[in-house]
Amino acid sequence: MSDRAYSLFEEQQRARGIDLSQVKEQLKAFQIETPSWGYGDSGTRFKVFQKTGVPRTPYEKLDDAAEVHRLTGLCPSVAIHIPWDKVDDYGKLRSHAESQGLKIGAVNPNLFQDDDYMLGSVTNTDPAIRRKATDHLIECVDIAKETGSRDISLWFADGTNYPGQGDIRKRKAWLHEALSELYKALTPDMRMLIEYKFFEPAFYHTDLADWGMAYNYARKLGPQAEVLVDTGHHAPGTNVEHIVAYLIDEGKLGGFHFNSRKYADDDLIVGTTNPYELFLIFYQILSAARDDDAAIRSTVSNIAYMIDQSHNIEQKIPAMIRSVLNAQTQFAKALLINHEEIAEAQEKHDVLGAEDAVRRAFEFDVTPLLHAFREEQGLPVNPMKAYLSSSYGKDILARGKGGASW
Amino acid sequence: MSDRAYSLFEEQQRARGIDLSQVKEQLKAFQIETPSWGYGDSGTRFKVFQKTGVPRTPYEKLDDAAEVHRLTGLCPSVAIHIPWDKVDDYGKLRSHAESQGLKIGAVNPNLFQDDDYMLGSVTNTDPAIRRKATDHLIECVDIAKETGSRDISLWFADGTNYPGQGDIRKRKAWLHEALSELYKALTPDMRMLIEYKFFEPAFYHTDLADWGMAYNYARKLGPQAEVLVDTGHHAPGTNVEHIVAYLIDEGKLGGFHFNSRKYADDDLIVGTTNPYELFLIFYQILSAARDDDAAIRSTVSNIAYMIDQSHNIEQKIPAMIRSVLNAQTQFAKALLINHEEIAEAQEKHDVLGAEDAVRRAFEFDVTPLLHAFREEQGLPVNPMKAYLSSSYGKDILARGKGGASW
Amino acid sequence: MSDRAYSLFEEQQRARGIDLSQVKEQLKAFQIETPSWGYGDSGTRFKVFQKTGVPRTPYEKLDDAAEVHRLTGLCPSVAIHIPWDKVDDYGKLRSHAESQGLKIGAVNPNLFQDDDYMLGSVTNTDPAIRRKATDHLIECVDIAKETGSRDISLWFADGTNYPGQGDIRKRKAWLHEALSELYKALTPDMRMLIEYKFFEPAFYHTDLADWGMAYNYARKLGPQAEVLVDTGHHAPGTNVEHIVAYLIDEGKLGGFHFNSRKYADDDLIVGTTNPYELFLIFYQILSAARDDDAAIRSTVSNIAYMIDQSHNIEQKIPAMIRSVLNAQTQFAKALLINHEEIAEAQEKHDVLGAEDAVRRAFEFDVTPLLHAFREEQGLPVNPMKAYLSSSYGKDILARGKGGASW
Amino acid sequence: MSDRAYSLFEEQQRARGIDLSQVKEQLKAFQIETPSWGYGDSGTRFKVFQKTGVPRTPYEKLDDAAEVHRLTGLCPSVAIHIPWDKVDDYGKLRSHAESQGLKIGAVNPNLFQDDDYMLGSVTNTDPAIRRKATDHLIECVDIAKETGSRDISLWFADGTNYPGQGDIRKRKAWLHEALSELYKALTPDMRMLIEYKFFEPAFYHTDLADWGMAYNYARKLGPQAEVLVDTGHHAPGTNVEHIVAYLIDEGKLGGFHFNSRKYADDDLIVGTTNPYELFLIFYQILSAARDDDAAIRSTVSNIAYMIDQSHNIEQKIPAMIRSVLNAQTQFAKALLINHEEIAEAQEKHDVLGAEDAVRRAFEFDVTPLLHAFREEQGLPVNPMKAYLSSSYGKDILARGKGGASW
Repeated sequence: MSDRAYSLFEEQQRARGIDLSQVKEQLKAFQIETPSWGYGDSGTRFKVFQKTGVPRTPYEKLDDAAEVHRLTGLCPSVAIHIPWDKVDDYGKLRSHAESQGLKIGAVNPNLFQDDDYMLGSVTNTDPAIRRKATDHLIECVDIAKETGSRDISLWFADGTNYPGQGDIRKRKAWLHEALSELYKALTPDMRMLIEYKFFEPAFYHTDLADWGMAYNYARKLGPQAEVLVDTGHHAPGTNVEHIVAYLIDEGKLGGFHFNSRKYADDDLIVGTTNPYELFLIFYQILSAARDDDAAIRSTVSNIAYMIDQSHNIEQKIPAMIRSVLNAQTQFAKALLINHEEIAEAQEKHDVLGAEDAVRRAFEFDVTPLLHAFREEQGLPVNPMKAYLSSSYGKDILARGKGGASW
Repeated sequence: MSDRAYSLFEEQQRARGIDLSQVKEQLKAFQIETPSWGYGDSGTRFKVFQKTGVPRTPYEKLDDAAEVHRLTGLCPSVAIHIPWDKVDDYGKLRSHAESQGLKIGAVNPNLFQDDDYMLGSVTNTDPAIRRKATDHLIECVDIAKETGSRDISLWFADGTNYPGQGDIRKRKAWLHEALSELYKALTPDMRMLIEYKFFEPAFYHTDLADWGMAYNYARKLGPQAEVLVDTGHHAPGTNVEHIVAYLIDEGKLGGFHFNSRKYADDDLIVGTTNPYELFLIFYQILSAARDDDAAIRSTVSNIAYMIDQSHNIEQKIPAMIRSVLNAQTQFAKALLINHEEIAEAQEKHDVLGAEDAVRRAFEFDVTPLLHAFREEQGLPVNPMKAYLSSSYGKDILARGKGGASW
Repeated sequence: MSDRAYSLFEEQQRARGIDLSQVKEQLKAFQIETPSWGYGDSGTRFKVFQKTGVPRTPYEKLDDAAEVHRLTGLCPSVAIHIPWDKVDDYGKLRSHAESQGLKIGAVNPNLFQDDDYMLGSVTNTDPAIRRKATDHLIECVDIAKETGSRDISLWFADGTNYPGQGDIRKRKAWLHEALSELYKALTPDMRMLIEYKFFEPAFYHTDLADWGMAYNYARKLGPQAEVLVDTGHHAPGTNVEHIVAYLIDEGKLGGFHFNSRKYADDDLIVGTTNPYELFLIFYQILSAARDDDAAIRSTVSNIAYMIDQSHNIEQKIPAMIRSVLNAQTQFAKALLINHEEIAEAQEKHDVLGAEDAVRRAFEFDVTPLLHAFREEQGLPVNPMKAYLSSSYGKDILARGKGGASW
Repeated sequence: MSDRAYSLFEEQQRARGIDLSQVKEQLKAFQIETPSWGYGDSGTRFKVFQKTGVPRTPYEKLDDAAEVHRLTGLCPSVAIHIPWDKVDDYGKLRSHAESQGLKIGAVNPNLFQDDDYMLGSVTNTDPAIRRKATDHLIECVDIAKETGSRDISLWFADGTNYPGQGDIRKRKAWLHEALSELYKALTPDMRMLIEYKFFEPAFYHTDLADWGMAYNYARKLGPQAEVLVDTGHHAPGTNVEHIVAYLIDEGKLGGFHFNSRKYADDDLIVGTTNPYELFLIFYQILSAARDDDAAIRSTVSNIAYMIDQSHNIEQKIPAMIRSVLNAQTQFAKALLINHEEIAEAQEKHDVLGAEDAVRRAFEFDVTPLLHAFREEQGLPVNPMKAYLSSSYGKDILARGKGGASW
């Protein structure tokens, strides 16, 4: 049935002007970084449910990430979080990764779990705390050198809960100071990715509250600074794909943290709440990938796709497999968009035709395509089934409970 | 200055038809219950900052609550949370409270911190877990008998994170089953207060998601079941005072959990984000308090005002003092509303006049009134100042860090 | 290609335990009412763009609706709006409809475009205005008798813009009075459908603000009163399918007004913003349709599916075709859900398995199924193409501009 | 009573370190521009209620604005909207204004009510439409020269309703083109103020959706381009005062459109929904006004405060009086903030003290201050009362109904 399905699909797409061999080339190039902390226990402020089999060390997190990559072929790199993934010897950590076909991806400083940072890290009124926070940022560059990481991924939990608690403009300047110092510490091949967040854990004002603020820092700092879009970090009703298109156009989209949300920063599995939104994000990216301007194309090709989720009720590894498969599915659908058809409809002021051209691609079932693609890549056709029928999930139970939390 | 301020204020209000002696009577009757867990460490999912001096036992929580009551005269009762406030001898806990002029208020079951409840407590597919959860509810009635509490205050964290995860209608029936069993266990003078929440910790669907669901359960159960409105538990843009007026009109408003939010359930100090909203809630309550219908008036007079906040960066006791003072301030302002003036403007279709009549009351500075009132009650004129200059805050530092968290 | 596609699809579904002959039976029974006002000019507060060819009379609106039904087979009834569709002889209007294979559907009173209603219609402080408004409601029942309509569809724009402008509880009572009078006027086979709306055109408080208020009126009135869910009328983040499941469970879901929104009540074509949400609504409906309880099944089978949109930039007829096709597409996908699989996963606490079972159905491309179904029904395989290549759209241009607006 | 009230207030403020003579200086400098369209009929998409006495011509709009200024002393300038305020001789319009002590304020182009602009004005795919739209912008500069206006105030309704309808990045470039051309047409003393809007009338994507996009255009264009913040144009939960502080810090806050909203762009009277938010905006402005940096102070002193509301149920002139009084009230309260006290609390990490210092100023009743100030300025102590007891409101009824709508 699977062969017939694929040849029918191919025929169908050819008739629409879509060449599946090119589609597969782009699928091959599509990679998603998984986060080390996505393999540990996390949860809500009400409760963290501890799961049996959760990795106890950064090394075991890499093992789990390698398993996800083996099954999906999608995840050759792993983001780390410092100090959660602090080890004595980062060279050893890197070797451990490489021995399993992985590399260490983005290095994520942590500036929100030290008592000193209660009222701000790099935006604290206390210069000693700002110093400590900035030093930690620079420490992460040093780690990145050892792990061979390209990206320093920055999320600041800094903000205030009450009017008056902080001086908004002073904090803005302090944040700039810290970022500037970090920027200077980067090696020429490194990037810093600046993440913004609408709210939480600060509830009145967040120092880096939206893409505009992140973009403006990145712009002032220089070409190695770019913006990181976390799909969950927006106000209700925000058009995320618009922001994505905007940042690409300015040459400042550095990467994504993928996850889903219905209300706030829910950190659910990407693609489970509004899969169409994810598809529309890829539509903007793929549209830009066809631009005449090489700078735009270069920005697109350097986008770092990363997962950032909090699996509080799910099994960690299957949740990660599902996440990357969902992203791949929507990416594959977006590859079926006929951009000429849309452009023509736009030109003719054919609103319904243009809308249809986009939505049509979303409605295809890309299962035949993905099955064929995986087969060609020597991957399990159904990575989730393959995982569930493997012994990996049972073997790790021996780790017991109480492994590493983020 | 203070005397002149008060007599000027009195004169001013008399000219508007407001009799301050009546206002003071209503101020005297206004009480706010503080929650035992508001004195412990709490925070966000990212970090709980541990404070020095936090109470180590339920007894010490009562001590802190008593201090707040001594200074403000506003908080003669304390809500408890089971098992956070589990003790061997609830009679002893009650005596400890009474010895300080307090009584034990609402008993709050906890159905969200046991591993069994990960996928639902009373709505779990597993009948044994539902049984365990319902038994805990009934245990709380037993505790309430011992503590002399009138209200069982119910918040269910139950819900799902993904479509399909649970059968929405089955869960609805199971929740009803548990509530019915609890209802039967109540003594005739007890009430159950059903709280709803828009989202969190469940992110796709919350079994008790809004006032309509809470109300419908309360209605089906009988007169001893009422709705608890947590001011932070609503969708953005919701008119909370409308819901308050609606529930009073149906005889089903049992009480409040007060706090402030700007985005989601931020659990900030009540009255710090949009004080006008709090005032408008009191406006609806005080308008209903004047109703010809005795049943409406009775509903109003039985409303339980309670604080439910999460002080993650604030000192606990001052945060609680600020909270109850803020509520008192807005209540006092609402007492200055001239309801006849509003009714007249409404009758004449005078939109701007009606709006002005409401807002005008809000704009008065009630400091002279509250100072005079407190003096008459033998209370410190400025409770916050009194606390900060007392030795209580220093003395409790001896408790050290690592006290009870919620 | 189409035949091969269908047989492959059938095979695929059979393997999953889905019998397409049953699916087709349900597709046959699926009908969507289109609104007469959806064929006229409408827009935003900033501008109504007048289109050439818009119907000039209620009769021409029916002609357009008949064309949509001819092409899609989905829309055998047309909702009317009084006074927009006021005619001297409703018997003649009905005959005109019937001559084209249509019937007149829900009758919609209009209580928001008369100067008298500026500060409320049935909730106005002026009893004469309330009388006038209630009389109009009853007039609609008389019209419904003549047109053979079953449903009176009620949307009240009533509300206030400022605190104090209206007495919330008095208005609640007045609304109840009017609804009661209307209820008594219904013939035994009629229903009244009570629609709620989160906001707009009133901005401070809406008398019928949410499902809970609509439900409570319907409950008090009796079995002929039910709730109408307009998909766009909710706060950001609201789980609409939860409300749908809830109302079905209470036997009170009377119907839908379908449309899409990204922010507020955007009135866009249904299924264009978050098609998964529409699918999940159908999932809840189809899940309830399998209930053991005949009352639940009866509620489901009496749900009135209606479009309510404002096509301000689109061509009216194609916009309507697209709308009903989108609804049919998501309904067809929902028919592919394997409910046993979900139930089993729920029972086993398999969160990811349950989610997958739901999402899998959504990911199928139902084009082969719908093409086969339409062919069997003697309908154009692609109704939109059929319309665009027909002469209807050109012929109506002769009507000129300035036709009926809503 | 009033004298005693003022001297008590003065004493009270002196004790806090606030010098009322300086406060009054700042009150004197505070001016709010009213919009010509705020005197005409406007409403919602459902209905525009026509009021008797609404001005029939731009000249009569100026008359009404002059009346508001006579009574409040706050509104010496009037924004105009082209073509709503198109006249043959702008010199005559200007003289008419000046003869009443007014000047013509910002010129507002209208790019949303011409049929050509249905799918975009300066972002239309059709170059002829873009040309027409840009020409209109430049026409407004010519008008501004004649009226002596400093500011061109730009709001673009441009956006799309559906994915695919427009090419987001192309539209971005076209908008930049038009703005650049307009920028070049400005005289050296003119400014262009770029307004952004979260949504409406476009519902899927708005070309100028947030402050970040408006800021980025302004930055690229040069020093004469700045951002206009409309308080109603933000996503739910947005911290508007943060954006205000941010833009001031970048030297790019050009002005405000004041109004209130509870849900979306409700265009209610400013200060009626959340007066604290308005106060907090002024707090940020006044904090920046004390900056050591002269550039920051210069930005602050050039902020254009303007009303932009839609009075659909209110009497127009009283609604405008209420609006400017509300703004003045919150401004006056913000002038009572003791900035040193806040800075000290921030330095000491005293969260509650800092919050209290801000909120305390808000809680003062500034009536005595404003009464005294108005008396000193030779203004009616209560401008609303003065208006209602004057004959102006009755006299204009002779204009009849059907005057100018916006």
